[in-house]
Amino acid sequence: MKKAVLIFSGGVDSTTLLYELLDNNYEVFPVTFFYGQRHKREIDYAKKTILELGLKNWIGYPLTALGKIGGSALTDDIAVPEGNYDEDSMKDTVVPNRNMILLSFAMAHAIRVGVLDIYYGAHAGDHAIYPDCREAFVDAMKVVAKVCHYEPINIEAPYLHMTKESIVERGLVLGVNYANAWTCYKGEALACGKCGSCTERLEAFALNGEKDPIEYIA
Amino acid sequence: MKKAVLIFSGGVDSTTLLYELLDNNYEVFPVTFFYGQRHKREIDYAKKTILELGLKNWIGYPLTALGKIGGSALTDDIAVPEGNYDEDSMKDTVVPNRNMILLSFAMAHAIRVGVLDIYYGAHAGDHAIYPDCREAFVDAMKVVAKVCHYEPINIEAPYLHMTKESIVERGLVLGVNYANAWTCYKGEALACGKCGSCTERLEAFALNGEKDPIEYIA
Repeated sequence: MKKAVLIFSGGVDSTTLLYELLDNNYEVFPVTFFYGQRHKREIDYAKKTILELGLKNWIGYPLTALGKIGGSALTDDIAVPEGNYDEDSMKDTVVPNRNMILLSFAMAHAIRVGVLDIYYGAHAGDHAIYPDCREAFVDAMKVVAKVCHYEPINIEAPYLHMTKESIVERGLVLGVNYANAWTCYKGEALACGKCGSCTERLEAFALNGEKDPIEYIA
Repeated sequence: MKKAVLIFSGGVDSTTLLYELLDNNYEVFPVTFFYGQRHKREIDYAKKTILELGLKNWIGYPLTALGKIGGSALTDDIAVPEGNYDEDSMKDTVVPNRNMILLSFAMAHAIRVGVLDIYYGAHAGDHAIYPDCREAFVDAMKVVAKVCHYEPINIEAPYLHMTKESIVERGLVLGVNYANAWTCYKGEALACGKCGSCTERLEAFALNGEKDPIEYIA
């Protein structure tokens, strides 16, 4: 059976990718990181998906040091900006070097469990503001993954050139239960519907002509 | 004034590199990681050097998740192997993907403090058993560091092609106080003198015709 480690945040992209891998008959080893993020509710949602799909290999790692680095609205007491991702204020949501840190831990976990294929859900919509979601970054990480261990590690980011709209389109075909995928950066009881992350999600469902199954603050 | 972030473990290599950077008139931002290592005594020794040199920018990050990954004699209840580094059993001291994890956090810290030059003390003596000390790894990390942030980050490993003997030779010229540099993997009150790390250190001092200033178990 094919096996893959998946960086699984519990958001729309990684939840869709989880269904995608299962659809391709992979045994999946999902890895979830807690890094002091304000929207830690996404981890509870990750758990809902894991339980619903009956997955056995899920593991969580506490990366509290990432929160200690600070300076991001996602981990500190800085207001989460509202509006679209292309606005400059959205830079406040950048956690410095987050994806390299998460990938490097996922690689350590991959080495430990002996599954040297790692999938993660970076995608094109993130390009403008997150340097570590760009193709140049992913390509460079693929190279370093080949030489960091005794055997090469393979990194795949199959959604890199897809938009949120096309990821949701794919997920709807796969039967993803998006009621279990958390998106809002604010991490309150209900999604705010206004932060960049909510805005992008709502647009993606609207463009697909579907109703988002999660509840938003009216 | 030139500035540099330094990955500072408190061992011989990074302590020598700290003196080297100060000798070159750098303002140094040393970063020390605790990752559940058995030889956490090295952190107490790192602190001795920081205090003796009167450095103000030292920071420590808890990377306890690295210990959770497990499987290494440096973090788990696995016997620390004795003898030379070239013996196969020394692979038990490999912490999976440790250097990429430490470098990725050092980069996050570099971004946070706005000092985009990072130094670390990887060296040739580690090549054989630690994949993440090889030139191919360091070269690949240099590439990824250029694209993970809005501005390029520069990684320097100036001791990469030096042996422990030549690093100690350099340190003796720089006046490094090696009484404050911890090496033993066992992390007991006195250095064991038998583990791969102690063996290499003792050889390096002997080849330089100098007495190692730390005390060993008789």
